[in-house]
Amino acid sequence: MIDRLGLDGEYREAELPLLIRRAGMAEWTGDRVRILDRKHLPHDERYLDCLTVEDVARAIETMTIQGAFTLSIAAGYGLALATPDRPLANLDEQVDLAAQRLGRTRPTGLALKRMLAAASAAAKDAARAGSNPRQAVIDIADRAAAALARQALATARHANSLLRNGDEILTHCFADRSFVYTLLEARRTGKQLHVFCSETRPYLQGARLTAPSVLQAGHRATVISDGMGGFLMQQGRVAAFLTAADRVCLDGTICNKVGTYQYAVSARTNNTPYYVLRQSGPDPESHDAKDIHIEYRDEESMLSYNGTRTAPEGVRGLYPAFDITAGEFVRSIVTDRGVFAPGNIRDYFAAPPSVPDAVV
Amino acid sequence: MIDRLGLDGEYREAELPLLIRRAGMAEWTGDRVRILDRKHLPHDERYLDCLTVEDVARAIETMTIQGAFTLSIAAGYGLALATPDRPLANLDEQVDLAAQRLGRTRPTGLALKRMLAAASAAAKDAARAGSNPRQAVIDIADRAAAALARQALATARHANSLLRNGDEILTHCFADRSFVYTLLEARRTGKQLHVFCSETRPYLQGARLTAPSVLQAGHRATVISDGMGGFLMQQGRVAAFLTAADRVCLDGTICNKVGTYQYAVSARTNNTPYYVLRQSGPDPESHDAKDIHIEYRDEESMLSYNGTRTAPEGVRGLYPAFDITAGEFVRSIVTDRGVFAPGNIRDYFAAPPSVPDAVV
Repeated sequence: MIDRLGLDGEYREAELPLLIRRAGMAEWTGDRVRILDRKHLPHDERYLDCLTVEDVARAIETMTIQGAFTLSIAAGYGLALATPDRPLANLDEQVDLAAQRLGRTRPTGLALKRMLAAASAAAKDAARAGSNPRQAVIDIADRAAAALARQALATARHANSLLRNGDEILTHCFADRSFVYTLLEARRTGKQLHVFCSETRPYLQGARLTAPSVLQAGHRATVISDGMGGFLMQQGRVAAFLTAADRVCLDGTICNKVGTYQYAVSARTNNTPYYVLRQSGPDPESHDAKDIHIEYRDEESMLSYNGTRTAPEGVRGLYPAFDITAGEFVRSIVTDRGVFAPGNIRDYFAAPPSVPDAVV
Repeated sequence: MIDRLGLDGEYREAELPLLIRRAGMAEWTGDRVRILDRKHLPHDERYLDCLTVEDVARAIETMTIQGAFTLSIAAGYGLALATPDRPLANLDEQVDLAAQRLGRTRPTGLALKRMLAAASAAAKDAARAGSNPRQAVIDIADRAAAALARQALATARHANSLLRNGDEILTHCFADRSFVYTLLEARRTGKQLHVFCSETRPYLQGARLTAPSVLQAGHRATVISDGMGGFLMQQGRVAAFLTAADRVCLDGTICNKVGTYQYAVSARTNNTPYYVLRQSGPDPESHDAKDIHIEYRDEESMLSYNGTRTAPEGVRGLYPAFDITAGEFVRSIVTDRGVFAPGNIRDYFAAPPSVPDAVV
């Protein structure tokens, strides 16, 4: 029997920062997927009820929910919306179509791809076995969510061992579960941290998501603009730079929110350690940077803010959502199975798993 | 007789981008200082009429006008507002008080300091000689504005020699006159450029001021967020990185809008040349980084965007307005007297002046 949160009593859900509670991510509520609308944070805690696959796909595309692992949970439940509760003739086709729609929301997302593959297979297996296909999909998403929490906690314990009481650290974008658990573990072990959160244009996840999570985890949070991190490193204000990674390649190359690369280069120049948190290790199918396809998103994001146009007619915008950082700029990659030098990240696969039933 | 623009017929004022026309900076209009309000650009072309020294000081403090050289012209005319048109007993005191108020608007501004010193001296000299002190101040500001334009054009010709037709270049913040004249000189010599303008948080000068100036000078402009420049260099998209500098030290260290340092570090890592435009050369009183005092501005700028609060209560902000880049990250410093390696910037003083009557 897996508990709802998956943390086996280590933390009670109510004491967690909002964004790593189940309610702060995505939940199955009987006949719909309920998603916390991150676009309106930190001011409004609004929830979006998704009744169709299309609702969930649009929630991902509009940044209502974000974060590679978090949105994969929403997508898992989303697939349940297209899956009947008893074996039907066209079930395979229906499930495949829904999985394709959800997969297109993030072409580079591996966690998403794995979740959809596992959930589709579960639905089809259940149908062949004569049991409830929809329930099988929900069970897979529940299991994935619980396993992700335990993996993140394992990662956080390794990351916390790299930090000292009083450290000022820099992060970029919202580094999600592993980072927030790191803050909780730091507090539990008596460390007070000060986190510089780069605001992260164009969606301002640093100001809107990271900074409040830092406060909720009991540490100090200071927002800076995306141009300031290197200067703070130069001034000796940054004990470590920590981010998540959307993908880690087998040669130690990482892919993360655009802006990461500049900070990583500044970190190496200033001898500031850069720790990448990647709870499930490298992608076995990505050998190096050539296997990463950078997603360019709508240029309008660069030309307006909050509905107000900032640049005049005739000016273009360019929005690569991610960038690529070679392993030479990374001090360590912190996973649920331990801390690895980028050049040794393949050793992850030989290390003992932290969670026996990981899905994504 | 100096023409109004100071360019001796090289360019007609009407063909210049708005922000380097006299009307786009600051003008004396008989009894007041008229300033283009840059806060409302690019959408509204509003002008602010300043009737008192305090009006001008607040215009500088609120970013109604910006740019080290440009605001020094406004300050010169501002001093005229406190200067009587005939010798009076308390003239020296009145002028000194006004100069102090205007000087406090930008504690690090050398051009401002020099303008105020020259204009104050002119007022006092005129009073002692029995002529019109106010007119003497206006004349100094007129001369400074004209000399700045010619210095900028001389700088631009050197900078243009470093660029090739078809180049894609990156700039940060609004690099002001020298940069805009470089774009004009490039077009005049048959070069088409594509300029990546980093939007430059928190005031978005890149989107609001630089991008429209690039279009007005006849080139392509693309806005990116402050986190993207390094990635574009890594991808081989940036032929050169160009900025202005608020100060150049005698050892080749430069001080410029925060964010410059990260780009400079990424430029060196990617072997992208970084050219600093500094029309009047180094500051003879600044030996190295220790002589630079970084201005920290209101943290609220980091916590809201366009009047909307982005971070929740309890979160702090930090806003160093400038950062410091060592000469090792700079390929060349381009001045009105030629192109110098950062380590040789002292040679500027031995080179022949481009303008005989520079004030600031």
